[in-house]
Amino acid sequence: MYRIDLNSDLGESFGRYTLGNDERLIPLITSCNIACGFHGGDPIVMEKTVKIAIENDVQIGAHVSYPDLQGFGRRKIDMTEEEIKALVKYQIGALWGFVHSLGGKLNHVKPHGALYNVAAKDMNTARAICKAIKEIDDNITLLGLSGSLMKDAAEEAGIHFKSEVFADRAYNNDGSLVDRKIKGSVIHDMNLISDRVVRMIKENKVISIDSKDIDVYPDSICIHGDTEGAEEFALSIREALEKEGIEIKPF
Amino acid sequence: MYRIDLNSDLGESFGRYTLGNDERLIPLITSCNIACGFHGGDPIVMEKTVKIAIENDVQIGAHVSYPDLQGFGRRKIDMTEEEIKALVKYQIGALWGFVHSLGGKLNHVKPHGALYNVAAKDMNTARAICKAIKEIDDNITLLGLSGSLMKDAAEEAGIHFKSEVFADRAYNNDGSLVDRKIKGSVIHDMNLISDRVVRMIKENKVISIDSKDIDVYPDSICIHGDTEGAEEFALSIREALEKEGIEIKPF
Amino acid sequence: MYRIDLNSDLGESFGRYTLGNDERLIPLITSCNIACGFHGGDPIVMEKTVKIAIENDVQIGAHVSYPDLQGFGRRKIDMTEEEIKALVKYQIGALWGFVHSLGGKLNHVKPHGALYNVAAKDMNTARAICKAIKEIDDNITLLGLSGSLMKDAAEEAGIHFKSEVFADRAYNNDGSLVDRKIKGSVIHDMNLISDRVVRMIKENKVISIDSKDIDVYPDSICIHGDTEGAEEFALSIREALEKEGIEIKPF
Amino acid sequence: MYRIDLNSDLGESFGRYTLGNDERLIPLITSCNIACGFHGGDPIVMEKTVKIAIENDVQIGAHVSYPDLQGFGRRKIDMTEEEIKALVKYQIGALWGFVHSLGGKLNHVKPHGALYNVAAKDMNTARAICKAIKEIDDNITLLGLSGSLMKDAAEEAGIHFKSEVFADRAYNNDGSLVDRKIKGSVIHDMNLISDRVVRMIKENKVISIDSKDIDVYPDSICIHGDTEGAEEFALSIREALEKEGIEIKPF
Repeated sequence: MYRIDLNSDLGESFGRYTLGNDERLIPLITSCNIACGFHGGDPIVMEKTVKIAIENDVQIGAHVSYPDLQGFGRRKIDMTEEEIKALVKYQIGALWGFVHSLGGKLNHVKPHGALYNVAAKDMNTARAICKAIKEIDDNITLLGLSGSLMKDAAEEAGIHFKSEVFADRAYNNDGSLVDRKIKGSVIHDMNLISDRVVRMIKENKVISIDSKDIDVYPDSICIHGDTEGAEEFALSIREALEKEGIEIKPF
Repeated sequence: MYRIDLNSDLGESFGRYTLGNDERLIPLITSCNIACGFHGGDPIVMEKTVKIAIENDVQIGAHVSYPDLQGFGRRKIDMTEEEIKALVKYQIGALWGFVHSLGGKLNHVKPHGALYNVAAKDMNTARAICKAIKEIDDNITLLGLSGSLMKDAAEEAGIHFKSEVFADRAYNNDGSLVDRKIKGSVIHDMNLISDRVVRMIKENKVISIDSKDIDVYPDSICIHGDTEGAEEFALSIREALEKEGIEIKPF
Repeated sequence: MYRIDLNSDLGESFGRYTLGNDERLIPLITSCNIACGFHGGDPIVMEKTVKIAIENDVQIGAHVSYPDLQGFGRRKIDMTEEEIKALVKYQIGALWGFVHSLGGKLNHVKPHGALYNVAAKDMNTARAICKAIKEIDDNITLLGLSGSLMKDAAEEAGIHFKSEVFADRAYNNDGSLVDRKIKGSVIHDMNLISDRVVRMIKENKVISIDSKDIDVYPDSICIHGDTEGAEEFALSIREALEKEGIEIKPF
Repeated sequence: MYRIDLNSDLGESFGRYTLGNDERLIPLITSCNIACGFHGGDPIVMEKTVKIAIENDVQIGAHVSYPDLQGFGRRKIDMTEEEIKALVKYQIGALWGFVHSLGGKLNHVKPHGALYNVAAKDMNTARAICKAIKEIDDNITLLGLSGSLMKDAAEEAGIHFKSEVFADRAYNNDGSLVDRKIKGSVIHDMNLISDRVVRMIKENKVISIDSKDIDVYPDSICIHGDTEGAEEFALSIREALEKEGIEIKPF
């Protein structure tokens, strides 16, 4: 029987600024990635988000980022491997404080934004992230882009890796995501999205933006949380999965 | 036999900015309080400082602060109890990431600067800090001002408390430190400092700025690390203690 | 003939985070106070906000704050007079860069949040703000709470002062605002609000929360921009003013 | 008669952290570049540095940087042209506040660290900086690397450009600086440094790291201020220049 995890980025509010639909999304997902204060989130938001994740029995991950609140972690910063390793440890630890004190478990780490995109293609960055995880706790899983260098780095470091796919994003032939600035990078047709998701899970295939079949091995589907209609999007995906008899379970 | 711990604030450098004499001080002390990025310190500095603390077999504590890098944590910020609790958890966790990954143990928490002074006199602030510690790990000790409300709050929360005294600072009659802005607040005569330290340990007494004997119950002496002559200061204190047969041991 | 200015706090978005209804409010007001990056705002937001202010022929002021993005400038920070003066100059200058380059004029300065509340009651803080303004350009007006120490400090420094009143906030007998945490501090009845505004302008009186008549001399009414219904609120105020023949003009 | 300007980066201290030898260097130079809070500097430091620059009759420039205090502005951040333009305006304005209020004149802008290196080779970045300057005040000069794209961008924008050379840095054949990580990138022999400086001014030539003669047209020599021996370095350069009859004057 087929199964899949649904993950979403939560806890991205900051101080007076509210972002996302955390309370409404969390009952619909099985894993969440919580911002650690470097692209979003602050101590109050982190504590609150960890709390609702535990209450909803959702797997908790640290959503680690370059230090760039103003750019929401979407701008690459030229950092050394040593800087990235220390940065990731800091953020994992900070989230751990809340998870541990509230009786939960820190399950995984997912890089955010520019750090995610760089780590997918740059082995040094991917390695720095994996080393940070390994040195803190080799039971923590790296959640990253299916088929990317993050997987290779995780294997090299000896930590678990789970593959994430995007339901509403177009893929290049090499398995990377089409840049958001390019037309057609985001898919809006909900029927098409559902069909793609089901095929990724059942056949491990998706059609690239150049109409080529490429391989994907999804452990989890990313549900964007910071857009209008995030809840409806999650409900539609769930419905499509259930109709096909695909079980929705934490990875 | 008498015994005492010597603690120092370390890891206060930040990026390009260097502060303190960590490498030279660390062989002379038994406990250190490491900045967590809120008044000083950054992930690289934290990792390095934890490493040298472990190598020198020095007890490690989180030196937690208001979020005020520019003011070096010395300016009070009006924060709610909930904000302080979350802030302290975040910083303890961040340091824990490095301590745990390097095979060390997070032994204690010491508030820094304005947070230290406020927590000494404001029960709500002291309580918020103690709750944060308690919820993360009730084996973590609070290191705070001898005779202050931090002790009451720690007892109320059910966590360990250790009393810190200052060798080179004048005391008010109520046991609080004389404000740095007031003349005579800092003592410079090394013989006088040594005599005061020994008397605090052996007789649990120190003479206040108003010439009154007050009670102190020192578990640890604070050795300032960010001043010229910090090393000589530490060496003089150690010599005075050894001459009097007072054992220098971690609390 | 009676006249009044309507002012609103704009440009409080930050990076990925959106706050307020700037585009819809700006045609309804005559002055705006633009965040300078310390409690909200960033260079991109500032440039954009200055642009729409100039396009709508609205007076531009610098909305200066304690350095506290996470607390949205609502938490008092213990700063010296010298620190506050330098802080205010920095923010005025930063906004001036945009105003000047887009061909506008920097008309006034209004302290934000905690800095506003502190400056209303603490002469040292009020003085520091006025000195900063005076030293940069004594044609810049201080916009502050009617009847507060900000007025005294402005007179002392020899700069212009304009009095602001709040349409939907309850007043204490001494003319200060009732703390937001106290029940009844915010008035929601739109008819009552309109009646109060008109009476403040025509009779220079408003009834305090203790039912006492107090004096107010409004030059400007503050229209909150970051709440739901800000636009309707502004429209209702405008309607009430127009019905009474009160001219809406920049101070 | 030959003439040259000597410039130095000042005001890079931050809060509790002290960097550089500003007071001792400033009598030895003719122009200074003052940090604006993004890689170093804070409002208090800026005000103080502007004051001593005016007292010593030294030309004042804004030393603008990527927002990266922790990395001291030495890490490239992927920012759009629009973001860089707004960032530069913000920093120019912030410094202007102090310069204007103290009766000085903002003479020039010099990009710092990674922004300097990127702007030397990337026309979009160089353009963004020049546009920011042009829109604020086209009398402000861009001070940048001799022979770099910053010169082209300044000409395109219609603003003044002055060329800076480095006395103690090795050059590549294309006129760019040899990366600090490469052996031989920094020259330590004071006689060699003096000879190179004199030849750059008199013959407009310098020998590259590959022993090729390359063209340089220096208006100013950069005197590093944050290293040990900065003062002696400046004195040696001055002595060499004076011996050769080269006049030291602001550009």
